[in-house]
Amino acid sequence: MTDEQYIKRTLRLAVRAQGMTSPNPLVGAVLVKNGRILSEDFHRKAGTPHAEALVIAKAGEKASGSTLYINLEPCCHTEKRTPPCTKAIIRAGIKKVIIAMKDPNPQVSGMGIAELQRAGIEVRTGLLEDRAQRLNEAYIKYITTGKPFVTLKIAMTLDGKIATPEGESKWITGEKARKQVHRLRSSVDAVLTAIGTVKADNPHLTARFRGSKNPVRIVIDPNLEIPLHANILKVPPETIIVTRSIGDKADHLEKAGIKIIRFKEKLDLPWLMERLGKLQITSVLIEGGSSLNAHALEDGIVDKVILFIAPKIIGGKDSYPAVGGKTFRRLEEAYRLKDISIRKTGDDFFIEGYVQY
Amino acid sequence: MTDEQYIKRTLRLAVRAQGMTSPNPLVGAVLVKNGRILSEDFHRKAGTPHAEALVIAKAGEKASGSTLYINLEPCCHTEKRTPPCTKAIIRAGIKKVIIAMKDPNPQVSGMGIAELQRAGIEVRTGLLEDRAQRLNEAYIKYITTGKPFVTLKIAMTLDGKIATPEGESKWITGEKARKQVHRLRSSVDAVLTAIGTVKADNPHLTARFRGSKNPVRIVIDPNLEIPLHANILKVPPETIIVTRSIGDKADHLEKAGIKIIRFKEKLDLPWLMERLGKLQITSVLIEGGSSLNAHALEDGIVDKVILFIAPKIIGGKDSYPAVGGKTFRRLEEAYRLKDISIRKTGDDFFIEGYVQY
Repeated sequence: MTDEQYIKRTLRLAVRAQGMTSPNPLVGAVLVKNGRILSEDFHRKAGTPHAEALVIAKAGEKASGSTLYINLEPCCHTEKRTPPCTKAIIRAGIKKVIIAMKDPNPQVSGMGIAELQRAGIEVRTGLLEDRAQRLNEAYIKYITTGKPFVTLKIAMTLDGKIATPEGESKWITGEKARKQVHRLRSSVDAVLTAIGTVKADNPHLTARFRGSKNPVRIVIDPNLEIPLHANILKVPPETIIVTRSIGDKADHLEKAGIKIIRFKEKLDLPWLMERLGKLQITSVLIEGGSSLNAHALEDGIVDKVILFIAPKIIGGKDSYPAVGGKTFRRLEEAYRLKDISIRKTGDDFFIEGYVQY
Repeated sequence: MTDEQYIKRTLRLAVRAQGMTSPNPLVGAVLVKNGRILSEDFHRKAGTPHAEALVIAKAGEKASGSTLYINLEPCCHTEKRTPPCTKAIIRAGIKKVIIAMKDPNPQVSGMGIAELQRAGIEVRTGLLEDRAQRLNEAYIKYITTGKPFVTLKIAMTLDGKIATPEGESKWITGEKARKQVHRLRSSVDAVLTAIGTVKADNPHLTARFRGSKNPVRIVIDPNLEIPLHANILKVPPETIIVTRSIGDKADHLEKAGIKIIRFKEKLDLPWLMERLGKLQITSVLIEGGSSLNAHALEDGIVDKVILFIAPKIIGGKDSYPAVGGKTFRRLEEAYRLKDISIRKTGDDFFIEGYVQY
């Protein structure tokens, strides 16, 4: 196997903990000696051992003289709950470390590598860097800006409609696309929606498959119109309501374990993202309607757009568009997506791209 | 080379005359003997020799004992301007004929094959039949129904918008997609638009590339609002105006060589398609706006939908949707597309599918 193949393997290992490691990155490690894999593992959850520590422990004394493959620069700081990995690597006698990408964390970036090199270890970086960055895109955004990585998800028809004029939207896409949405939810820290969607669909916004993890659900509900029996209030781990309302209903909800974030007058979404960042929410999936989708794009908080497109045409000027909003843009001012990928998912299409602001 | 590879070759030959053979089908032929190609050719234009006649003439006496590969059943009727190909095949001493698909023309279907078999020629049919049918989809529709094959083309943003509220629509898609539109126009007999598009964009709706052929342009213009200097009136071969208006302006246009089709009260698109069929228009490309797109779908005249999708989001409830219309549909009543294919074209996406009514 080549260096690149081993790095690919670290990525495949790392992704197995998707959605589980927040606020930590996804990291996989492989220890190789004389062309044979001594051990391989991945980081499972914040507070538990790092991937480097796991593979070194598994290999025991054999680790001496081996090569470590890892998708992210090993940590060198001591502020975390786990000891710095650079020390463990040096102590284990590893002679070479191949890294996909530097850690963007300003407390680490390049310093982990420098420490290894000072100890006489050969270090190579930048292998499959693009893929490694894609894998940890949420971590990178969060650790460098303090704000969550935001994905806007829209399920729509080919002609860009998300619901009929009467609000009918179940089910635009097929079962396979819906399953993928459950995986998406499990992969993020929080799902953000608005009261309109809660009232229209009464969604759970949970991740329903074996081994899944439910995201925090966040509802933008300025006037606290949410019904007390709404499904979104029921399920662990937590529901957050973003409102300007003060009063008995808010108190009642807080006592029932619902977290309230208050804003004054008009909700500023960038401000909300900062607030969520402070709650260690590193990634947010927006699942709203025409209006929330438009505001999120207008306010510039969206990093990635994911579209599930059903091969249907609904038509009608009064059907709900994927992106509403009172304002419109000139063609040259349209939001542009880059690095787009597209694939079939069941009878539907899956399109993913990054917003170019 | 296998039989399938030779048939593929006939399809590649046939497609070289795309847009030029109407109302005839696209046909390519390859003559093979002892594993070597004796001759190959394709039908170029109605009234000129068929592909079978061309390859037989090219091969001369060598044709005796050879195998003929052809994507469509050879003709056996004598109503055409050219002699029946079955006779020529028998006379040339061809011993085997491999055919992709039967001719759907009721004057031929199966009878050409039967005639060959009666003459002791071995015939095999159905090789790459799907691809052969796709190639001649317009011919098949026309010859069996008398109505043109209708393709609805829409260039839109990812969120299904074709123009800003002010009607700005140039250019939503990139250069490569626009070039493909010119090829589409060259491949059809006629392009159909509506007066709204003519007034907003003053388009030529011509096929502008080397070796292209301009389609007939058809404008739906109930009240004859078309400006006399409109670009669409200028270019050969012909412009047809579909109107309910009677009077001096119509007379003036007719004298200037514009063809007028008159309807009473409300335009019925299926009726118009029958009229166009009688003018030997076998294929129509619709390039209109929200309203024409909606009517065409509502009236059930659309066979195929082609979408050019730009990786942009324009948003705004007042932007023009790809498919407008006053009515809307329940989700279960949405128009569905089948046999969808998708690919990148420059920075844009090309989606093609067939309407399931």
